[in-house]
Amino acid sequence: MISKAQIQFIRSLDLKKFRDDSGCFIAEGDKLVREALSISAGSLFRIKMICATDSWLDQVRPAKDHPEIELIEVSESELGRISLQKTPNQALAIIFRDQSILHEFDSDNNLLIGLNQVQDPGNVGTIVRLADWFGLDGVIASPDSADFFSPKVVQASMGSIFRVRLLTADLIEFIKSLKPGYPVYGTHLQGQNLYTSELKDHGLILLGNESRGLSSDLMKMTTDSLLIPDFSEGRYKPESLNVSIAAAIVCSEFRRRGNG
Amino acid sequence: MISKAQIQFIRSLDLKKFRDDSGCFIAEGDKLVREALSISAGSLFRIKMICATDSWLDQVRPAKDHPEIELIEVSESELGRISLQKTPNQALAIIFRDQSILHEFDSDNNLLIGLNQVQDPGNVGTIVRLADWFGLDGVIASPDSADFFSPKVVQASMGSIFRVRLLTADLIEFIKSLKPGYPVYGTHLQGQNLYTSELKDHGLILLGNESRGLSSDLMKMTTDSLLIPDFSEGRYKPESLNVSIAAAIVCSEFRRRGNG
Repeated sequence: MISKAQIQFIRSLDLKKFRDDSGCFIAEGDKLVREALSISAGSLFRIKMICATDSWLDQVRPAKDHPEIELIEVSESELGRISLQKTPNQALAIIFRDQSILHEFDSDNNLLIGLNQVQDPGNVGTIVRLADWFGLDGVIASPDSADFFSPKVVQASMGSIFRVRLLTADLIEFIKSLKPGYPVYGTHLQGQNLYTSELKDHGLILLGNESRGLSSDLMKMTTDSLLIPDFSEGRYKPESLNVSIAAAIVCSEFRRRGNG
Repeated sequence: MISKAQIQFIRSLDLKKFRDDSGCFIAEGDKLVREALSISAGSLFRIKMICATDSWLDQVRPAKDHPEIELIEVSESELGRISLQKTPNQALAIIFRDQSILHEFDSDNNLLIGLNQVQDPGNVGTIVRLADWFGLDGVIASPDSADFFSPKVVQASMGSIFRVRLLTADLIEFIKSLKPGYPVYGTHLQGQNLYTSELKDHGLILLGNESRGLSSDLMKMTTDSLLIPDFSEGRYKPESLNVSIAAAIVCSEFRRRGNG
């Protein structure tokens, strides 16, 4: 049986303020909660509570390996009431994240993505997911980007949120903290052809806001400016590519070079 | 002044049945309606009606070049009532599409995308947008994919819907209609490394359903199977990439080869 106070707490985690205050966030759905259960012990994350249907608890038996997690059996309709998703799905986990541990990045070797005011949670989650696929060493987001631990970002990341090193930081200060000479790549319509540019195996790839692109302050800090060539040839100029699509193409090209 | 019958007609276009019956679909927002106005005369598309605010009509003056379009001035609140978007934006166009004209594709030269039950409208629209960017010769979607002219696909395509050649067809029949030997590329977790595979400058790139991938019937018809390598190296296996992200990486690699 779930209490009113618990429902209220869970629903409060839709807001960043309450996530920051409590250090907790929500992951929903069978797949994501199972991934959360498989997180290694040394990680930043610790499941505090799982609200799930009778049949899910019977099948997954989280108490076997994780006696410390509070388990609450809920009906489908109760799950619907606490869920932040349109179609609630069997289980919901409240996860505590240790905010005191900050990742350190290695300016000699790391390939990183920096998000400058990327505001759509779907884009941020998709970019974390592809950073995971391409084995990037971290994603750094400006404080005015969509929050990594908002429910929509967590869901769009499909569990990659647990595996990719994430940092929210002022990007200008972050770049200043890196070793001088560390490559900073911007994407820009006046940039050099991505396919023929020299790409290092490390560096920071900056991605800008969905409509305004990179801020001019950040643009000044880039060492290389890249362009994904447009092959539309004389037809009416297409809109620029979506930011997560551009991220995918650029990350793929960095990794292809190393793979070739 | 907009009539009740007009409001009813516009809102009916949210459903495929009414789009097919009338041949009409909706494009919303300042940018998209301006793009629709710039469509060349010989195209499949013809704007029938624009509902827009006083200030938008004053600024854009569609009657100057297009006296045939019916213009209806609406207040912001009326626009809110007819709009299918969360945040209605100044203008909405009802566009007629000539369904009797079918595109022909050239099996010797065309680079095409085939969508096998890609159900998320955002994915379909994003793929049309990137087909435009990469100058692909067409996108063919199975009838159980999201409809190209549904409001969400039109919005996600950012106007590319007007420029890319689109066809809804049974993909197996479509492949049978192509010249024997025409390359048919599938993406598959057991495929060959995309970066080192031989890629022709023409062919059909098949993309499958968001959770189930390509159907086994279609898989049998592929001539080449491609894999986007995963660089996560021993960490917990990431989820497969989102279908529009995979499409972007594959299209980029096809075009890079031609560009190199």
